[in-house]
Amino acid sequence: MAKVLTSRSENYAQWYNDLVIKADLAENSPVRGCMIIKPYGYAIWEKIQAQLDKMFKDTGHQNAYFPLLIPKSFLSKEADHVEGFAKECAVVTHYRLKNDPNGKGVIVDPDAKLEEELIIRPTSETIIWSTYKNWIQSYRDLPILCNQWANVMRWEMRTRLFLRTAEFLWQEGHTAHATKEEALIETKQMVDIYGEFAEKWMSVPVLKGHKTESERFAGALDTYCIEALMQDGKALQAGTSHFLGQNFAKAFDVKFTNKEGKEDYVWATSWGVSTRLMGALVMAHSDDNGLVLPPKLAPIQVVIVPIYRKAEELEKIAEKINPIVANLKAKGISVKFDDSDNRKPGWKFAEYELKGVPVRLAIGARDLENGTIELARRDTLTKETVSIDGVEDVIENLMEEIQNSIFQKAFDFRAEKTTKVDTYEEFKELLESKTGFFLAHWDGTAATEEKIQTETKATIRCIPFESDGEEGVCMVTGKPSKQRVVFAKSY
Amino acid sequence: MAKVLTSRSENYAQWYNDLVIKADLAENSPVRGCMIIKPYGYAIWEKIQAQLDKMFKDTGHQNAYFPLLIPKSFLSKEADHVEGFAKECAVVTHYRLKNDPNGKGVIVDPDAKLEEELIIRPTSETIIWSTYKNWIQSYRDLPILCNQWANVMRWEMRTRLFLRTAEFLWQEGHTAHATKEEALIETKQMVDIYGEFAEKWMSVPVLKGHKTESERFAGALDTYCIEALMQDGKALQAGTSHFLGQNFAKAFDVKFTNKEGKEDYVWATSWGVSTRLMGALVMAHSDDNGLVLPPKLAPIQVVIVPIYRKAEELEKIAEKINPIVANLKAKGISVKFDDSDNRKPGWKFAEYELKGVPVRLAIGARDLENGTIELARRDTLTKETVSIDGVEDVIENLMEEIQNSIFQKAFDFRAEKTTKVDTYEEFKELLESKTGFFLAHWDGTAATEEKIQTETKATIRCIPFESDGEEGVCMVTGKPSKQRVVFAKSY
Ligand SMILES: [Zn+2]
Ligand SMILES: [Zn+2]
Repeated sequence: MAKVLTSRSENYAQWYNDLVIKADLAENSPVRGCMIIKPYGYAIWEKIQAQLDKMFKDTGHQNAYFPLLIPKSFLSKEADHVEGFAKECAVVTHYRLKNDPNGKGVIVDPDAKLEEELIIRPTSETIIWSTYKNWIQSYRDLPILCNQWANVMRWEMRTRLFLRTAEFLWQEGHTAHATKEEALIETKQMVDIYGEFAEKWMSVPVLKGHKTESERFAGALDTYCIEALMQDGKALQAGTSHFLGQNFAKAFDVKFTNKEGKEDYVWATSWGVSTRLMGALVMAHSDDNGLVLPPKLAPIQVVIVPIYRKAEELEKIAEKINPIVANLKAKGISVKFDDSDNRKPGWKFAEYELKGVPVRLAIGARDLENGTIELARRDTLTKETVSIDGVEDVIENLMEEIQNSIFQKAFDFRAEKTTKVDTYEEFKELLESKTGFFLAHWDGTAATEEKIQTETKATIRCIPFESDGEEGVCMVTGKPSKQRVVFAKSY
Repeated sequence: MAKVLTSRSENYAQWYNDLVIKADLAENSPVRGCMIIKPYGYAIWEKIQAQLDKMFKDTGHQNAYFPLLIPKSFLSKEADHVEGFAKECAVVTHYRLKNDPNGKGVIVDPDAKLEEELIIRPTSETIIWSTYKNWIQSYRDLPILCNQWANVMRWEMRTRLFLRTAEFLWQEGHTAHATKEEALIETKQMVDIYGEFAEKWMSVPVLKGHKTESERFAGALDTYCIEALMQDGKALQAGTSHFLGQNFAKAFDVKFTNKEGKEDYVWATSWGVSTRLMGALVMAHSDDNGLVLPPKLAPIQVVIVPIYRKAEELEKIAEKINPIVANLKAKGISVKFDDSDNRKPGWKFAEYELKGVPVRLAIGARDLENGTIELARRDTLTKETVSIDGVEDVIENLMEEIQNSIFQKAFDFRAEKTTKVDTYEEFKELLESKTGFFLAHWDGTAATEEKIQTETKATIRCIPFESDGEEGVCMVTGKPSKQRVVFAKSY
């Protein structure tokens, strides 16, 4: 079987791009920077959506939908926000085309120019807070706990499938609260949900913490994040939750009357994850043979490949397999019996390996005689012959085992790639030879942060919530530091 | 209780708008023509989506996602298509804003002009068929059965919440087939699914048939539709399924090698329903007190309102009600026990009536003594006192009964509002005094169709699939007609 992917060691970026395309996850579109999410990729995204949506609803959130387009003037109402987002946006200036009088095709109708340009939402704080103004009068109207699943657009110059695209799909939660404390609890709750989802569903271990001031969301007072480590030792920010204080309430004049009858501005949070999670999922686990998917997010969890020569052999195999398929489905396990006759078993094996199907069963005439079946695990690439009786229970247990095993592998990898560093010299040296997370003391200033970034390209990924309490001195300036922060090169 | 809605008889259009807003379904946004779908409205849309998505997947379709933006030149590749869609589109011409050097705020950066303008998709045939070209080489690659849930935009001048908005949410299926026959079967299958969904889930009876040539989708060889009748006697097109022939394959040069080794163009269909269904749902069933929702699409199916004075009374009611809530949930019935103390029972009754909750239970101290509970049906506005023991089963049965009863009421209404007409004079006269569907003979020409529309404002809603076989002569020209067609004034 010829290798279809560039190997990770040869060229990690190329391996990733090959894999996304060859495994039918996504491809580039004729519109620069915009991707097409193919059915197999979209099926994974649907599983991500379904679980997150459940977690949001279980914590009292409701979905809603706000307009795609935002009046240009809205963006400049929150001063920091416009600095962060106004730069690279798709701008709608006209609302009509007309036939080209000088030839074929269509041209923009100059008579149909908008009075005020509209921006395709890069994020929806502004349009949502202009709406909340009408929804909120009293503390009785609070909290508002809305989420929206939507497409957004940021005009990126250098794009990579899933990781950075001009248009992407995401969810954005926007909540409104009567008190600062409640908003802070919400901000933390949502980053915890993201962390739980990443670890339990994606099998990707994450660090949770604060972003530094310079890495905060434009308009936020604090940004919490989850940071994952990819196989090339680079960090990937997989989700963020923002405490917005009263910034957007002030920008859009959203006040409420509290229980004591006094007016105050409303407190806000926003939080989001995007199709970037697909990139994290691919890069965290997959290998040179293709995708490795945790069972909880695999569109097909088990594939069964019959090995046969004659139609009557296939018939006998099908007789044996059909009840197993039914039993697996009854257990909630998605299974595909691939009895198509236009591809050889070897081709199928490679194909499902590429697609990351967690468990593959193969069965031939001799297996039928012996009452056995060959069971292959995608994550470990191991094979064993097992009894066909009771294979459903074996598989059910395996689903959980694989889910955990993939997590453990990523967890061990991260542990191995996490290094404590105490001097800036050592830090710079290590960055040349090694990748991963570096735990170091920092003096808390933007100046030092910038110096490090300029000199090493490493950034502070987060200031972890959990610290071992070990105080120290900044590796650059020698000034005091309360805890180590996490440095890494990143996506 | 003061009426919160304009009555239907007073002003049907105003009643509809009042209801959509007061029942928290949707509202207008600061962006002209774009709506905000509020959480309660969106919860209904999610139920619509979930059921349709299941029906699509059960028939072998997969979801995917294609770009929001379409290069301007794509629109003109299919000649009819550009005529139908290019006129009123949102046009992206720039990709950057910058700070206004002459003041505060931001302006469009003239240096960031796109070489080719991009259009926000009004529908995605062009971008999808430009993609299918790369996916299809051989008959083995067919059929492709893709659907996408997405936002689309058509620059409408006169908008109405849900019924006609510049941006709306929809699903668009786009399939590719090796033969004409297969594409025609798919086209029919999807309009049948829409019909089944409308009747079984929305409780809205629909007529299924062909659109006339002049009412076809731009680029289609045939358009099938479902047509529903609203309470004001106007028709509403609720879903369409298009047989596109080889038009888009030719426009985007999508050929395949068939089993015989010959090249041919691929056959296409597309089909869609949108948030317009929300408008149909509201207008078909609701009354002057508010929404009437069929149980299958109601976000809350049962509300329980406790009637009490003291906290200990509420405690006793809650003790009795909590197991009932649990039992109803176990039956898959969504139930809300509204024990909030900031609103009186009368306010709650009106509120849940406005929101269309199918069943309301009310329970007070005397009910506790008697072992009874008051049960009110939203659709019939009837109340009865029933035994609290076994009320869960009563409610379970009632869910189906209400679902069917709402359908039957709409069905009877339609029957009453359907009139056979044989002369054009009678047709014109009746249109002045009566609304609804008019079944009449038509000669099949666009000229006659246009004459009728110009003179009466009634259009041909569809040429029904099912005809009683009664031939006749066109009411206008006296030329022969094979079957009656359906005329109505419409949304
Ligand atoms: Zn912080
Ligand atoms: Zn037809």
